[in-house]
Amino acid sequence: MTDRPRRAPTGAAVLQPHITSAITEAVLDELAAQGYGRLSMEAVAKRADVSKSALYRRWPSKQDMVIAVLSEFSVPLAEIPDTGSLRGDLLETLRAVHDWLTHPRFATILPDLTAEAARNPTLAAAIAATIGEPRRALGAATLRRAINRGELPTNLNLELALDLTAAPIYWRLTVRQAPIEPTYLDQLVDHILRALGAHTAPPS
Amino acid sequence: MTDRPRRAPTGAAVLQPHITSAITEAVLDELAAQGYGRLSMEAVAKRADVSKSALYRRWPSKQDMVIAVLSEFSVPLAEIPDTGSLRGDLLETLRAVHDWLTHPRFATILPDLTAEAARNPTLAAAIAATIGEPRRALGAATLRRAINRGELPTNLNLELALDLTAAPIYWRLTVRQAPIEPTYLDQLVDHILRALGAHTAPPS
Repeated sequence: MTDRPRRAPTGAAVLQPHITSAITEAVLDELAAQGYGRLSMEAVAKRADVSKSALYRRWPSKQDMVIAVLSEFSVPLAEIPDTGSLRGDLLETLRAVHDWLTHPRFATILPDLTAEAARNPTLAAAIAATIGEPRRALGAATLRRAINRGELPTNLNLELALDLTAAPIYWRLTVRQAPIEPTYLDQLVDHILRALGAHTAPPS
Repeated sequence: MTDRPRRAPTGAAVLQPHITSAITEAVLDELAAQGYGRLSMEAVAKRADVSKSALYRRWPSKQDMVIAVLSEFSVPLAEIPDTGSLRGDLLETLRAVHDWLTHPRFATILPDLTAEAARNPTLAAAIAATIGEPRRALGAATLRRAINRGELPTNLNLELALDLTAAPIYWRLTVRQAPIEPTYLDQLVDHILRALGAHTAPPS
C-alpha cells in the first residue's frame, strides 16, 4: 500500500452523477472486453476519461467497483410488474432472466465472473450478497404473492422454486449456448407451475 | 506455422497408453490451475514429463487436446445404471451431475471453459458436440425407457426435460456457489417428476 495524495473534496465536484455514469459504462465495457482478471483501474479511468482518483473516491478497490456496477445493473432487471396471476408473473420473471443473460455486454460478463468466483471465495461471497440475494428476494416476493392468492401451496420449497426459475435459462443460454425458441419460455412456465404444485397448473 | 521436424513413428513407442494417461492427468491439472486461456502445450508436456511432440502426435491443437480429455472425463460420468424406475433413474442422474460438477479439478474447469466458450464460438461448438450432446444422448435414453414403461407421457418435451435435470444443480453449485443439502436432490426429483407429468409423480 502506498500513501496517495488526496485532493480535498471540492463540494459539487465530488461524485458527480454524469461521471459515475461514465465510469459505470466504462466498467461494463472493460469487463466485457477484458474479463474481471485483466480489468485494470487504469483502463477504466482512461475509457471513462476520468482520473484514477475519481474511481477511488467512489470505491476502495477494483472488486468493490465491479460488484457495485454489476449489482446496480442486475438487480433492477429482476423487478417485474405484478400481473395478478402466477402464470403471468412467472413468464415475466423468465423473460427478465432471459433479457439479463442476453444483454449485449452482460452475456460474456456473467460467465467470466462465475469462473473468477470459482477461484475466489471473497468475490463469490460479494456477488451472492449484492446480486444473487437481492434478485432472489424480488423473486421470493413474487412467489409469496401467489401463495397469498392461494395459487401455490403454503409449504412451497422457496429455495428450489427460485433455482428452477433461473437455472434452465442460464444452463441453456450460457452453458449450452443453445437458442431459446419463442415457445421455450411458455413451456418452461407450464413445467414450473406443475413442479411447484400450482393450483392453476396446466395438465401435462 | 513453422515446419517442425517429425520423428518417424517407431512402432510400439507411438501412443503408449501410460503416456496418454499421464498427459490426460497433466491437462486436467493445468486446466484447473491455469484455466484454458493460459494453458500451454509446454506446461502440459513438462507436467506429464513427455515431449511436446508426444502431445502433437495425439492431437493437432490445444483445443483438440483439451476437448478430447474433457470429453473422455465427462461423458462416462453420465452413464447411470438402469434402476428400473423413473424416480430411481432421475436420482442417479442428479447425483451423477452433482459428482461431475463437484469433482475436485472439474469444479473450476467447467466455469472457466464456459467463460472461454462465451468468447469463442469454435470452442463452444466443439464442447457441445463432444461433451454436451453425448451426455444428453445418455439422459435421453433414460427418459425414453420411462416413456416405454408408461411412466412419462409420449409427448414429453425431451429438450426441456434434459435442461431441468442438469440446470438447477449447475446453477446452485457453480453459479450461486450455494450448498446442496442432502435432501435437495430428493426434493428436486419430486419437482422434476411433477414438472414432466410423470404418472408416478408424488403429490405436491
